[in-house]
Amino acid sequence: MPTINDIARQLGVSKSTVSKAFNDADDISETLRKKILETAVAMGYKRNRIRKDAPKKLCILVTTMDYKNPAGFGHDLVTGFQQTAVLDGWDVEICRISDKEQTETSYDAFMLSHSYQGAFVLGFSLSDPWMEDFKTAGTPAVLHDNYIPNNPSAAYVGVNSEEGFDLAVSHLKQLGHTRIGYLGGDANSFIVRARCQAYLHAMERHGLTADQSLIGRSCFSFECTGMHLPRLLKNGVTAVLCEHDQLASAVLVHCMEAGIRVPEEVSVIGFDDTAFASCTIPPLTTIRQDQNALGRCGYYALTSLLNHTCISSLLLRAQLIKRHSTGPVPKAEL
Amino acid sequence: MPTINDIARQLGVSKSTVSKAFNDADDISETLRKKILETAVAMGYKRNRIRKDAPKKLCILVTTMDYKNPAGFGHDLVTGFQQTAVLDGWDVEICRISDKEQTETSYDAFMLSHSYQGAFVLGFSLSDPWMEDFKTAGTPAVLHDNYIPNNPSAAYVGVNSEEGFDLAVSHLKQLGHTRIGYLGGDANSFIVRARCQAYLHAMERHGLTADQSLIGRSCFSFECTGMHLPRLLKNGVTAVLCEHDQLASAVLVHCMEAGIRVPEEVSVIGFDDTAFASCTIPPLTTIRQDQNALGRCGYYALTSLLNHTCISSLLLRAQLIKRHSTGPVPKAEL
Repeated sequence: MPTINDIARQLGVSKSTVSKAFNDADDISETLRKKILETAVAMGYKRNRIRKDAPKKLCILVTTMDYKNPAGFGHDLVTGFQQTAVLDGWDVEICRISDKEQTETSYDAFMLSHSYQGAFVLGFSLSDPWMEDFKTAGTPAVLHDNYIPNNPSAAYVGVNSEEGFDLAVSHLKQLGHTRIGYLGGDANSFIVRARCQAYLHAMERHGLTADQSLIGRSCFSFECTGMHLPRLLKNGVTAVLCEHDQLASAVLVHCMEAGIRVPEEVSVIGFDDTAFASCTIPPLTTIRQDQNALGRCGYYALTSLLNHTCISSLLLRAQLIKRHSTGPVPKAEL
Repeated sequence: MPTINDIARQLGVSKSTVSKAFNDADDISETLRKKILETAVAMGYKRNRIRKDAPKKLCILVTTMDYKNPAGFGHDLVTGFQQTAVLDGWDVEICRISDKEQTETSYDAFMLSHSYQGAFVLGFSLSDPWMEDFKTAGTPAVLHDNYIPNNPSAAYVGVNSEEGFDLAVSHLKQLGHTRIGYLGGDANSFIVRARCQAYLHAMERHGLTADQSLIGRSCFSFECTGMHLPRLLKNGVTAVLCEHDQLASAVLVHCMEAGIRVPEEVSVIGFDDTAFASCTIPPLTTIRQDQNALGRCGYYALTSLLNHTCISSLLLRAQLIKRHSTGPVPKAEL
């Protein structure tokens, strides 16, 4: 691995100038700082992960996630991570990263310039520019709900979607449902694809048919409820699995407005067990992911990567929370 | 959950007799002890996982694995687990469990009677009687290379087989191989099945054909080498992936005896990177699983279960170790 001296020599600058760039000092120009960092990364420079005097700094990278709202999805993930990291003496900073920033600087250079030793990465879609960087990055990154193949510096934490949908389909089958539909997004996202796959696998394992007539996918929840849901119901669906609670809640509202009784005429199941899931009308049956635990596991995975224990994936059990949006299949269908 | 009092009342014995059974005391009969433990488990009794005065005892359950030999597979798994557990003040005992013991006592009753709070389970096959117990057991169990669906008290640790075979097939493809065969067991084991599946998936991802003419499976390595290997070679195979290093090493010996040059005429890849893999002739290209790290992760998963963080699976990255048993595809095949 090149040293700071090598980088200084390569660029014809002093060693202290390189150090300044690494430590984000104010007294060098932004252009020079960027050039030094990009050169360092291109030359394969890495901070020594176990250097005793290195600042103990980690970051949580978010794009658009609303992690400040206690009812929002990211809040408990962030909290769980911070709570455990702080106990070990780490500083944890939360960085909101725009598309523009991701395009202008590489992930490794960004981490180097801020002296972050590793990142917990939340809510990135497959089209985020850094998703390409994570494939070869040398700075440890733990991604929630995103899987990067083959890079020993990246790990995936999440909840086991396959088990989640298995519990949901099993619950509905016990209630007599066989025509079980699925509503979800069609976004360019690892987890959106994984959940739809998990639905299909669960249906197959339980010996139930799942074809396109039972599936509706759109990025816009009004299309899911206004267009796909009526089509699914027309095709004989008596229960609907939704990719996430927000969509399930939109389905409940749509049913109420259209005079369709839940669960008497149709059963609805969400995913995540976000804070509002118990407050919908009727309260939502959903698949829980324990987000505080996911945050804690994210921290464990990150410290493992820092210690060269190369975790590929760490998945938590999903849990089915039965409330009142699911019930026996309507008698007419029996 | 029932108390010790409830169990005593149910059986018409004193509270201290129940305690004696739980603490494996000498002064009650084996028959009574067994009856008390089975009744306690049937009534849903569990030791309080976070009771401050509970003895800090964990166990490592093995069947036939040779964990004492530093060159054997289980040695580093056991060491990694013990090293981290001891730091946290746990006593760790290693228990060799026969089929007979598994049939006579349930897993939960065994754990209760020895005051073990959790187990790290190594080398169990699908036909081991306790594999059924693990599906519903209440005492935390972390299983190496075995996956138990839906039980929040069980977790699976292992290496990512899919990634391992992906690296191996990718390496061989770069060397010009397209007819890549597979040799493995046909035992009733989760990991034996998972590795064969991983081979098939990797071939598919790389656009290569894998049908039965390229696959040989038998519990006996002499059948793999003496019967299946000649068949595979006759079917045009130029490289063989083996389920584990021991089988790969048998393939190397067979080739030497039959005058087939490795890697000039056929390339061979193993799995595990056991201690002898670098000492075969030629030294074996293989897929490494870091067993000490797996042991450490096993301990982390077990403490997570004890703290009610329900890990479903924790997989480590596989790593391809290139030695001299793989080389370019023979010219005649180009």
